[in-house]
Amino acid sequence: MGMVGGGKDAFIGAIHRLAANMDGLIELVCGALSINPEIAEESGKMLFLSPDRIYKTYQEMIEKESQLPADQRMDFLTIVTPNFAHFAPAMMALEHGFNVVIEKPITFSLDEAKQLQAKVKETGLLLLLTHTYSGYPMVKQARRMVKDGVIGKVRKIYVEYPQGWLSRLSEREGNAQAAWRTDPGKSGKSGSMGDIGTHAAHLAEYVSGLKITRMCADLNIVVEGRMLDDDGNVLLRFDNGANGVLMASQVAAGEENALKIRVYGETGGLEWRQEEPNTLLVKWLDQPTQILRAGAGYGDRLSSYSIHNTRTPGGHPEGFLEAFANLYRNFALTLSARIDGTTPPEEALDFPSVDDGVRGMAFIDNVVRSSQSNEKWTEYEI
Amino acid sequence: MGMVGGGKDAFIGAIHRLAANMDGLIELVCGALSINPEIAEESGKMLFLSPDRIYKTYQEMIEKESQLPADQRMDFLTIVTPNFAHFAPAMMALEHGFNVVIEKPITFSLDEAKQLQAKVKETGLLLLLTHTYSGYPMVKQARRMVKDGVIGKVRKIYVEYPQGWLSRLSEREGNAQAAWRTDPGKSGKSGSMGDIGTHAAHLAEYVSGLKITRMCADLNIVVEGRMLDDDGNVLLRFDNGANGVLMASQVAAGEENALKIRVYGETGGLEWRQEEPNTLLVKWLDQPTQILRAGAGYGDRLSSYSIHNTRTPGGHPEGFLEAFANLYRNFALTLSARIDGTTPPEEALDFPSVDDGVRGMAFIDNVVRSSQSNEKWTEYEI
Amino acid sequence: MGMVGGGKDAFIGAIHRLAANMDGLIELVCGALSINPEIAEESGKMLFLSPDRIYKTYQEMIEKESQLPADQRMDFLTIVTPNFAHFAPAMMALEHGFNVVIEKPITFSLDEAKQLQAKVKETGLLLLLTHTYSGYPMVKQARRMVKDGVIGKVRKIYVEYPQGWLSRLSEREGNAQAAWRTDPGKSGKSGSMGDIGTHAAHLAEYVSGLKITRMCADLNIVVEGRMLDDDGNVLLRFDNGANGVLMASQVAAGEENALKIRVYGETGGLEWRQEEPNTLLVKWLDQPTQILRAGAGYGDRLSSYSIHNTRTPGGHPEGFLEAFANLYRNFALTLSARIDGTTPPEEALDFPSVDDGVRGMAFIDNVVRSSQSNEKWTEYEI
Amino acid sequence: MGMVGGGKDAFIGAIHRLAANMDGLIELVCGALSINPEIAEESGKMLFLSPDRIYKTYQEMIEKESQLPADQRMDFLTIVTPNFAHFAPAMMALEHGFNVVIEKPITFSLDEAKQLQAKVKETGLLLLLTHTYSGYPMVKQARRMVKDGVIGKVRKIYVEYPQGWLSRLSEREGNAQAAWRTDPGKSGKSGSMGDIGTHAAHLAEYVSGLKITRMCADLNIVVEGRMLDDDGNVLLRFDNGANGVLMASQVAAGEENALKIRVYGETGGLEWRQEEPNTLLVKWLDQPTQILRAGAGYGDRLSSYSIHNTRTPGGHPEGFLEAFANLYRNFALTLSARIDGTTPPEEALDFPSVDDGVRGMAFIDNVVRSSQSNEKWTEYEI
Repeated sequence: MGMVGGGKDAFIGAIHRLAANMDGLIELVCGALSINPEIAEESGKMLFLSPDRIYKTYQEMIEKESQLPADQRMDFLTIVTPNFAHFAPAMMALEHGFNVVIEKPITFSLDEAKQLQAKVKETGLLLLLTHTYSGYPMVKQARRMVKDGVIGKVRKIYVEYPQGWLSRLSEREGNAQAAWRTDPGKSGKSGSMGDIGTHAAHLAEYVSGLKITRMCADLNIVVEGRMLDDDGNVLLRFDNGANGVLMASQVAAGEENALKIRVYGETGGLEWRQEEPNTLLVKWLDQPTQILRAGAGYGDRLSSYSIHNTRTPGGHPEGFLEAFANLYRNFALTLSARIDGTTPPEEALDFPSVDDGVRGMAFIDNVVRSSQSNEKWTEYEI
Repeated sequence: MGMVGGGKDAFIGAIHRLAANMDGLIELVCGALSINPEIAEESGKMLFLSPDRIYKTYQEMIEKESQLPADQRMDFLTIVTPNFAHFAPAMMALEHGFNVVIEKPITFSLDEAKQLQAKVKETGLLLLLTHTYSGYPMVKQARRMVKDGVIGKVRKIYVEYPQGWLSRLSEREGNAQAAWRTDPGKSGKSGSMGDIGTHAAHLAEYVSGLKITRMCADLNIVVEGRMLDDDGNVLLRFDNGANGVLMASQVAAGEENALKIRVYGETGGLEWRQEEPNTLLVKWLDQPTQILRAGAGYGDRLSSYSIHNTRTPGGHPEGFLEAFANLYRNFALTLSARIDGTTPPEEALDFPSVDDGVRGMAFIDNVVRSSQSNEKWTEYEI
Repeated sequence: MGMVGGGKDAFIGAIHRLAANMDGLIELVCGALSINPEIAEESGKMLFLSPDRIYKTYQEMIEKESQLPADQRMDFLTIVTPNFAHFAPAMMALEHGFNVVIEKPITFSLDEAKQLQAKVKETGLLLLLTHTYSGYPMVKQARRMVKDGVIGKVRKIYVEYPQGWLSRLSEREGNAQAAWRTDPGKSGKSGSMGDIGTHAAHLAEYVSGLKITRMCADLNIVVEGRMLDDDGNVLLRFDNGANGVLMASQVAAGEENALKIRVYGETGGLEWRQEEPNTLLVKWLDQPTQILRAGAGYGDRLSSYSIHNTRTPGGHPEGFLEAFANLYRNFALTLSARIDGTTPPEEALDFPSVDDGVRGMAFIDNVVRSSQSNEKWTEYEI
Repeated sequence: MGMVGGGKDAFIGAIHRLAANMDGLIELVCGALSINPEIAEESGKMLFLSPDRIYKTYQEMIEKESQLPADQRMDFLTIVTPNFAHFAPAMMALEHGFNVVIEKPITFSLDEAKQLQAKVKETGLLLLLTHTYSGYPMVKQARRMVKDGVIGKVRKIYVEYPQGWLSRLSEREGNAQAAWRTDPGKSGKSGSMGDIGTHAAHLAEYVSGLKITRMCADLNIVVEGRMLDDDGNVLLRFDNGANGVLMASQVAAGEENALKIRVYGETGGLEWRQEEPNTLLVKWLDQPTQILRAGAGYGDRLSSYSIHNTRTPGGHPEGFLEAFANLYRNFALTLSARIDGTTPPEEALDFPSVDDGVRGMAFIDNVVRSSQSNEKWTEYEI
């Protein structure tokens, strides 16, 4: 693995490394870790990189790595720069034959995302988009249960993602995370929807197996002086006729990272909360609610997808980093199977791809367009 | 207390009696308990009514009771008939000088509600509308905290009311409750919004002290063959600019009566769930979330309104019937103070009135109108 | 109903009246509400008692009431005085043919309890002991599930009752409740075990259907200067060989009334918490944990005992007062069936009796004896 | 890192590797991964070990590694064999100058533990004992709060560890984990207390900063035919006079890994549950309970020990593997500081050592002795 961005003070780069390390399948071998050469150098040393593989720019890295023998060069490139700086290194990596991992949202614009999609299709390379939340075992469990018809036809989806960390105008108080994420030039057209609404939309589609077909969005700039929406509520319609609500807010004071989804079908409902991720509530019309737990020894009650993505027995909680690591592990299993010419388990193939990235960018475009419209319903275009 | 409706097999009439009994302040003295004379008779006997005060019709009851000496006749009339049969007895009772208690929604139409409002104003009589959920002590606590500015200016309100009991077409399977509640001729223009959405809207306005000013509604008939909406999602705007979402569903399979409200302000948030009503979560930007508990001995941390509406010490859970009894108790305290010429405690004056009833009917009208509109926002008219 | 004790400032008397009022089956008709004649008088007026039935002493009340015609006198006497003043009015009432309700613990000493037991046997009158917690519907549900073998043979019982209200030496700071409850002359041999440990022991035996056969107790006076134990931990053995732990503490700072029981059998476990009483967790060896909810529409999954003791549909929480009212309601149904010469439903016969009172007093005796012993195990004697 | 035991089908070895990998500070370089040479070979290959560092026995590994140049040999040896096979490799490693990591319990007997303690003292080498649960950030937080006097003098400790996985006689049904853990020849004198009771005892002493001084134990073989206790309840006394209860059971049907501790002091209480480890409840006498959350941005409310052991921001749950990784990370930071001649942060020095191992073995000895005694209290000897 090589890495673009993620220098010593960067948040998400460190998370990626923790996740990639966990299973002992992936090794960081090179990096262009900062646009500041000194930080790049220092960060590389801290991460025990070989001095000759600490690069100053991603261009340099991609070029030099591509000239190494196949068994020595990095197998894929991870891009953890701010949103606006995803596209160029991703495209260059693909063009030089490298597989790619990108932090979400995949690009700055839908058009860029489509270009990457085309390039992935053309090259046949793998691209992992790190929608972490669909890496949780009980999210996988929920998806399989819906797919297996356990709750009948889906009727209603309620997904919410309240955070409180932007309740103040922190971007003017020296908070670097807040600064770039609320800056339209770095973050994109939308704040709350780009940063967290896309996660919620991805989760809704992933769990339900449905696609959003239209929406009615109300995006708001709640904190005066902010440049991008920090809050939004969206009515949804899915391709089977189900209705839904998506809420994403960065100004829900006192909330941490309270992503939650509920899916109701004809005969039951599912509920999952990211802050207690090892539990999936299964509600029934005529039976008591059940508490399904990751890793529990229920025989065949847990799907193979849930089990494949769990490392410890029931009662040993796994968390965000393990969900993140599941993405990397599945990507690595798929990649190494490809290298070895073997077939990976079908469970390993289930990771977010460039197609999810295109859908995420389309969601942002559509939700912004809907918010600006006086019409109730905006058709989802892609 | 006299009662119209609420015969032996009726659900809500029994609840009203339990609530009215609890504090020993109110006695059921007469009733026209059913349109079926035999059931009326039998029900009256079961409730130990004096035989001469078991009436066949509400008209007979109001007339005869009004001819009794003031210290013998009923002090007020409680109306627990289906929605379409609220108005006539209420109006007649007011015209004959009786105070009135009505199960919500107050009437069948907004126009009827306004007529009652005018009559109440004219007569100076009291009218209690039994919006039970605002009788819970921790709901009162939440209202006072918002009013006192504890969480700063309100920014976002998220109120949801999922139930699952109409997930099947039960109205065709002999379920009497389901039959009248899904019948436009008995229930009104809206099903989910009339039955439970009004509770949610009332709660949102009660806790926040704000008024809804516009909305964007998506009402749905989810179960095929049903005649009224059984599900709806509504985007809201409040008079201070706060945004909100209201969800009410009777097809959220596996849910019981999961009313929940969250109110976020500049510096904190409040969260209350009806199914665990003695707890109010208070969330802070810079402090750990606090678990406020009804009846707890925190000195002056609980408002006098919360304490006034609590009967037992902390850790002795109170529930739905106590909340309901709080409405009756406050109504009775206000009424007896009026009879005695004394001043009731200000906490006793805080019960839902005809004005809340008018707002509830207006909510239904507006939400139905919005749902039928292609415009995103519908102004709240009254 | 007549009442001894429970004047205007008394806590538990008011609770008894709320509970007795609730179902409209019981009317307070007379009282000797305080040893202070002025308070007795004033309290009687506040409760709308007929002036000639406001008595100065319980002796006067029992004598005069017994001279009234059978259909006019009180049907039973409720005793809500402090522990030391339970026996005399109870015995006198029984001797005059009155049924009796007593707040727990039944008497001041085991010997008194046995005398009452003999008198009840002799007279055939009814005695209700208000062990409130066994009146909760989900406690009844748990008992029936154990009885029906749902979790197999019981292996382990874990019952805990932490409270924090005596964490300070409140009895010296003018807290009247604390004063009498920590006074050996008024409360009995034990503080924590007499006040709350007996509830826990009753609950353990009630739910499991087992009897304690021996114990190993560690009682402590934690707050310096206190005269009775305010904390205790007890190892238990039951008559089927199951082991157990009982903890009761009044110095568990920050706890309200956190009574909780867990019963583990060969194939599953049950868990119930008083502070969230409408939920019973049912745990399984090979299946997900289930959340059983009072009043839920599960067909025949809830026992008739649970349903009989529930007033509202699922999702409408019932609480402490309803559990208390269940005791009164069942007592009243049994009593009125007896008066009418009919057979009450078997569910109504399930209320704590004088036999439970004797067992409670024996528990206190045994636990104190064990605590004073250096031997590990003390046989349970009665 | 080198590893003894932990071949391809071993549970705990894989957990150790996940934990050691996570932070990128530790690399597995050699192993004697199984007593079965083929499995050792195969496992080594699966873990990408260099063929010449896949050893057949720990003796061979220790000898050969000790002959490598200092900068090439393993820095420490991790021992993840069953209990009876801890001592010999640990002693040999220490004698050859290697630091050691041992899965708990440290040895098979107290005597062996004391020998290791003496050897560690003599050599000055580091030994990490993997009591995972004290690696959780909110356990660290609890310890610091007690130490800082936040809840006043500790009065009562209630620690429980119910599991249900041995509810059946699984050791006779081919469950290898169950087989060795219930075999006195492999596991030691006690089953439940050796396997999980030691965790509970360690947690109680770690959080409270107190030492157990005497105990009264009731150990049971609940499942017929089992050779070691599978359940136990223990009354405790601590060195400041506080009382306590410790429960550990492997037959609590339906429980996963429900370790929980409550510590009550003069002015407040703390509660932590392993199955929801990112939350610490802080209870107060006169204030609402607070929900402290790992990683939350409360300024200085979270101790530096909690923060040091957290990798992600509030709301991104960390779990068992992160707690485990904290042990390794702190061990590695201390070790590398020692190698570099620098001073590690004081937070890194806080990991379980050989002294905790000795105390754990003493706990087992004492609890077994107490269980066999008819005296109530057994003094804690070491």
